[in-house]
Amino acid sequence: MARRATGKLIIGIDLGGTKILAGVVGKGGHLLGQSKRPTKPEIGPEGVIDRIAKTVREAVAAAGLSLSDIAAAGAGAPGPLDPDEGVILNTPNLAGWKDVPLAAMLGQRLGLPVFVGNDVDLGTLGEHAFGAGKGVRDLVGIFVGTGIGGGLILDGSLRLGWRRTAGEIGHMILLAEGPVCGCGNRGCAEAVASRTAIERDIMAGIESGQASLVTEILKRDQRERLTSGVLAEAFAARDPLVVGVIGRAQFYLGLLAASVVNLIDPEMIIFGGGVVEAFGDEFVAPIRQVAYENSINKTGEVKIVPARLGDSATLLGASVLARRKVNRRSRK
Amino acid sequence: MARRATGKLIIGIDLGGTKILAGVVGKGGHLLGQSKRPTKPEIGPEGVIDRIAKTVREAVAAAGLSLSDIAAAGAGAPGPLDPDEGVILNTPNLAGWKDVPLAAMLGQRLGLPVFVGNDVDLGTLGEHAFGAGKGVRDLVGIFVGTGIGGGLILDGSLRLGWRRTAGEIGHMILLAEGPVCGCGNRGCAEAVASRTAIERDIMAGIESGQASLVTEILKRDQRERLTSGVLAEAFAARDPLVVGVIGRAQFYLGLLAASVVNLIDPEMIIFGGGVVEAFGDEFVAPIRQVAYENSINKTGEVKIVPARLGDSATLLGASVLARRKVNRRSRK
Repeated sequence: MARRATGKLIIGIDLGGTKILAGVVGKGGHLLGQSKRPTKPEIGPEGVIDRIAKTVREAVAAAGLSLSDIAAAGAGAPGPLDPDEGVILNTPNLAGWKDVPLAAMLGQRLGLPVFVGNDVDLGTLGEHAFGAGKGVRDLVGIFVGTGIGGGLILDGSLRLGWRRTAGEIGHMILLAEGPVCGCGNRGCAEAVASRTAIERDIMAGIESGQASLVTEILKRDQRERLTSGVLAEAFAARDPLVVGVIGRAQFYLGLLAASVVNLIDPEMIIFGGGVVEAFGDEFVAPIRQVAYENSINKTGEVKIVPARLGDSATLLGASVLARRKVNRRSRK
Repeated sequence: MARRATGKLIIGIDLGGTKILAGVVGKGGHLLGQSKRPTKPEIGPEGVIDRIAKTVREAVAAAGLSLSDIAAAGAGAPGPLDPDEGVILNTPNLAGWKDVPLAAMLGQRLGLPVFVGNDVDLGTLGEHAFGAGKGVRDLVGIFVGTGIGGGLILDGSLRLGWRRTAGEIGHMILLAEGPVCGCGNRGCAEAVASRTAIERDIMAGIESGQASLVTEILKRDQRERLTSGVLAEAFAARDPLVVGVIGRAQFYLGLLAASVVNLIDPEMIIFGGGVVEAFGDEFVAPIRQVAYENSINKTGEVKIVPARLGDSATLLGASVLARRKVNRRSRK
């Protein structure tokens, strides 16, 4: 029975703090049906997991299928989590959920085996299987948004690490005793190059009296926060404050890539996430240049490229995780 | 014939810029015979490789054996080198040798298969097989001397990297736009925490008028350079300048360990090299504390320990490399 299942379709799920995405994924990474809805984490685990199950059923229906056509589901969720047991440990992004057995609870609702992984790890796995890293054996994903997350594929496999915390790239230290990070330490990549850091530096510039288009855009759109879209608009108009701050962030991301290359020497580094997507593929060019200049091997052979799968990376990666787990079981 | 060879003894060689070490190594890492002599790299590859062969023959004789009892030899050499072909590419530490086929040239002289690896990679492999990392599956070696080198063991195997330059830990960036490094970039770990950086900062302190025991020790010993021994003596006497500069280096080494942990989450980090050995095991304690404080996983489970094999790490690791290669061949 298990062997037959490996030919079946897989569900990929991206459980985020604001929205749930689900898709039916064919073997080549084709999305046969999709659905999404807001997460509403404040209603608690039982309610949210009901919402996930509903989103999955809609995606299956959108593909013209039924759950009996599905072999398994994979879900990416914000960490920290226990990928072996499929348990969400303690997640600020999900209203502080604690010790929620997501795999078991969702599995019961769907009648399917469910496998869980870190969302950024699975985004990297998705890019590896179907996106910018297709056919590459060794790569590192760096996702720049509110924070900076990452994932490692070494010798074709996702590296989870000894304590299951590998890939915390945003907390590599680039500027000793630099700005305080969300994690409490100083000078982490996330504290100097995330959207949070960019926003902090632009707001400090404005408060110190620098003129900036950002002030006008925020007023026009009646916004308070600097979204990636606002940043991209001011950058495109060559606003000097924004261009300067973004240039600094790109410099630090280049140093981050160089540090990663000097330590583990991967074949490719993929930059994705909200900030990278908002600015387009050209955002990566200055990062690449700084990375090459600061790599000990200056041949420039390491490929530094933008992600390709956008919002679908994590759910596609989740489907890869689930497919591999099912195949492994069926081989036993 | 090949299968019989796997039970035989292996030669381990450490080809350094100043000295050649060779040893006959039994399966458990026991040194059955050893020898050493100065390298004299200025006499050129042919002459130095003759000297290596002579050192090997002496080690074999010291063990009461002959070369026919030996299955293979492994040699650690300073990089950059091509470990697959056993060729030294271009080595400042060996008077600028270029494209020297060390494995082939030494193999011819000894009548044995010879395998070559980066000295720091093999030092890490030695500590993994027989030293501080025995029985550990995942570890990172960080060796602090004139420079800072490193090696990675992931899932029990040495990671060489895509371009064979993994483990260049000394060139991870810790202080963006900080002091200039030997590699030409700024703020690398090597530029803030190697003996070279420590010496630079102590000499700058003395030149700016700070009193220090170092001045007296150098005069007493008629030395000009700050060796690890001089540093350790002044540190033991609690010389304020030296204590301050060493404390800074330990702080940076702690940040370096944290960056490594946050990226690849190994089971253990081993600190070795001339500086660590001169100061003794207690040198690692403040590094460990900073590393724990700056790790995203603050459970403190990562083991941060001093190396155990001292000068023998590289030659023992070289023997491991050679033994594995011979075993792999005999299985084919």
